Amino acid sequence: MIRFALTALAAVASLTLTLPAMATTASTPSPPQPIVIAHRGASGYLPEHTLEAKALAYAMRPDFIEQDLVLSKDDHLIVMHDIYLDATTDVAEVFPGRARADGHFYTIDFTLAELKRLRVTSTFLSTEQGTIAKYPNRFPLWQSSFQLSTLAEEIELIEGLNQTLGYDIGIYPEIKKPYFHHMEGKDIAALTLAELKEYGYTSRERKIYLQSFDAEELQRIKRELMPRLGMDLPLIQLIAVTAWGEKQLQVDGKTSNYDYDWMLTAAGLERIASYADGIGPWLGMLARIEGGQLHTTELVQQAHRQSLQVHPYTIRADPSEIPKEVGTFRQLLHIAVHGFGVDGLFTDHPDRVRTYLTREASGDRHN
Amino acid sequence: MIRFALTALAAVASLTLTLPAMATTASTPSPPQPIVIAHRGASGYLPEHTLEAKALAYAMRPDFIEQDLVLSKDDHLIVMHDIYLDATTDVAEVFPGRARADGHFYTIDFTLAELKRLRVTSTFLSTEQGTIAKYPNRFPLWQSSFQLSTLAEEIELIEGLNQTLGYDIGIYPEIKKPYFHHMEGKDIAALTLAELKEYGYTSRERKIYLQSFDAEELQRIKRELMPRLGMDLPLIQLIAVTAWGEKQLQVDGKTSNYDYDWMLTAAGLERIASYADGIGPWLGMLARIEGGQLHTTELVQQAHRQSLQVHPYTIRADPSEIPKEVGTFRQLLHIAVHGFGVDGLFTDHPDRVRTYLTREASGDRHN
Repeated sequence: MIRFALTALAAVASLTLTLPAMATTASTPSPPQPIVIAHRGASGYLPEHTLEAKALAYAMRPDFIEQDLVLSKDDHLIVMHDIYLDATTDVAEVFPGRARADGHFYTIDFTLAELKRLRVTSTFLSTEQGTIAKYPNRFPLWQSSFQLSTLAEEIELIEGLNQTLGYDIGIYPEIKKPYFHHMEGKDIAALTLAELKEYGYTSRERKIYLQSFDAEELQRIKRELMPRLGMDLPLIQLIAVTAWGEKQLQVDGKTSNYDYDWMLTAAGLERIASYADGIGPWLGMLARIEGGQLHTTELVQQAHRQSLQVHPYTIRADPSEIPKEVGTFRQLLHIAVHGFGVDGLFTDHPDRVRTYLTREASGDRHN
Repeated sequence: MIRFALTALAAVASLTLTLPAMATTASTPSPPQPIVIAHRGASGYLPEHTLEAKALAYAMRPDFIEQDLVLSKDDHLIVMHDIYLDATTDVAEVFPGRARADGHFYTIDFTLAELKRLRVTSTFLSTEQGTIAKYPNRFPLWQSSFQLSTLAEEIELIEGLNQTLGYDIGIYPEIKKPYFHHMEGKDIAALTLAELKEYGYTSRERKIYLQSFDAEELQRIKRELMPRLGMDLPLIQLIAVTAWGEKQLQVDGKTSNYDYDWMLTAAGLERIASYADGIGPWLGMLARIEGGQLHTTELVQQAHRQSLQVHPYTIRADPSEIPKEVGTFRQLLHIAVHGFGVDGLFTDHPDRVRTYLTREASGDRHN
């Protein structure tokens, strides 16, 4: 999941014109509630993708907990968001000489044993004045002690908790930048599927979605890898804004950004429906602002017409992440659930989303 | 906290004779609710005293999270229950030659760096057939990846979560076996107080209790160490059954068990009240069985007469830990809260206790 502020929802003047009025919500029959996906764990409260953040998320009763996956030098699936270690670990101190020419410390250049020596903290930004927290109100930088972990360790944590606490929470792994891993001579999709198969995630009977921003790799997974392994898992096509450069292409020696715009068309969604069960769009793709007013786009409706589920990213409760025109986190949720009609929500604050949905299900008119 | 089944509560035939009837609970005015102390974290669900178990416990909203403390060779305060590493780690595999003559691997013989190399798992018993889980329904042995941690790491975890989730959860450290540490030439009480002071736990304004089974050490803390450090923390005198050998004495070259029986008398409680704010008795000390009937003892009443709080250990929801005559976990809680009238409860299942208390506070008659 890419991190971006929900700028597209800024300046919402006519909310009640385009959305059901909030006061009447409880008395109208509700569609099925969206699933709650703990985005990188309970990442609003503890350093993302640590086992501690996953244990905390578990107690908050999401439907799924997300794992971003990157390969180590020795082919272990590491649960972390970036292909670099720069923004969440002390790699620059522990292995000062190991950055590449571009200045980045690549996860793929380190063995699992080396990666386990790193301390993990909340995401930070490097500035001329030193490092500062990306989200100032989150878990304080460099406090306590956290480590990177593997997909296997995380699956065993969640499955163990499914035994002891009994909530039946699923996994939602994302294969990060397959094109990059291929350039490094590694097949992260094949290794991910093999690991999932080892833990018994081979069919739709298990609670799992497999996601990627890479359409070509998802089609390869659907048409080659899964049939070869006797697997059939539901796939989610993540959709990035082209300008982010989420996937980069080398054409005639030049680097260019993969163009995601086709995915936002009716024809594109029909094509996605031939290999995926749903889409994971950026929240900003579900609404646009014109004349200071918020208008929901056709994306959810068009996706539903293709029987595609829609799980947008990312609902965050940090004050800085809620456009002041939207108002409160609760109103943001109301827009997402009732305005957009999504089937799932990636969120850094699964407790807040679960509380909202529970109150709504119980008919709490003051929700 | 010592682990013992609640055998004293077995064979409860006349529960309703000695306790308020359950159906009338909601309509009678309730005394203040007991505090919930997460015993070794959410140890019913994850390996005890891991940071993951503490993060999970945090989400369950106890009032306090417990830390048992043992010193490493290099004087770090390690959060673990035993003075041995035998029953929760892979020390025998990682450091095969490092057991003492008695066969135990002592935490105090290892540096923090060495201890960090160990894998932690759920408590296991060594049998001739190999190792088996002490509690068969808890987190499966050797799954996922857990480590030992220090008091500093745990305080920073809890304080960080107090910032991000905002629940204001306190700490409840226990100084383990001061007599043993003294024999090893270490002053664990002084080191614990110094660490607590470093984190600002110097007065009753902070949410903390400090506990120990050692009456002499608690008096030293109260009368010498805390005044010298300008500290004033509430102390809890834990009470063991003498036969457990929780504290051992060397007299004329012979080892004998410290006699705890004086603590269970009115005079003993008066003496405890001169240095402590409360007692932590074994749950079995609050009731005895005579003629197949449960009779509550005078202990809580006598302690309250000395203005001592009573925080018994340990409420567990594992089926094996609930005497069949008591029936359900809910009934066990009902006895503890209404039959015994305790001020706090150590529990391995803080979510279950919190749910019970929340329902009771809301007047749920079906609780």
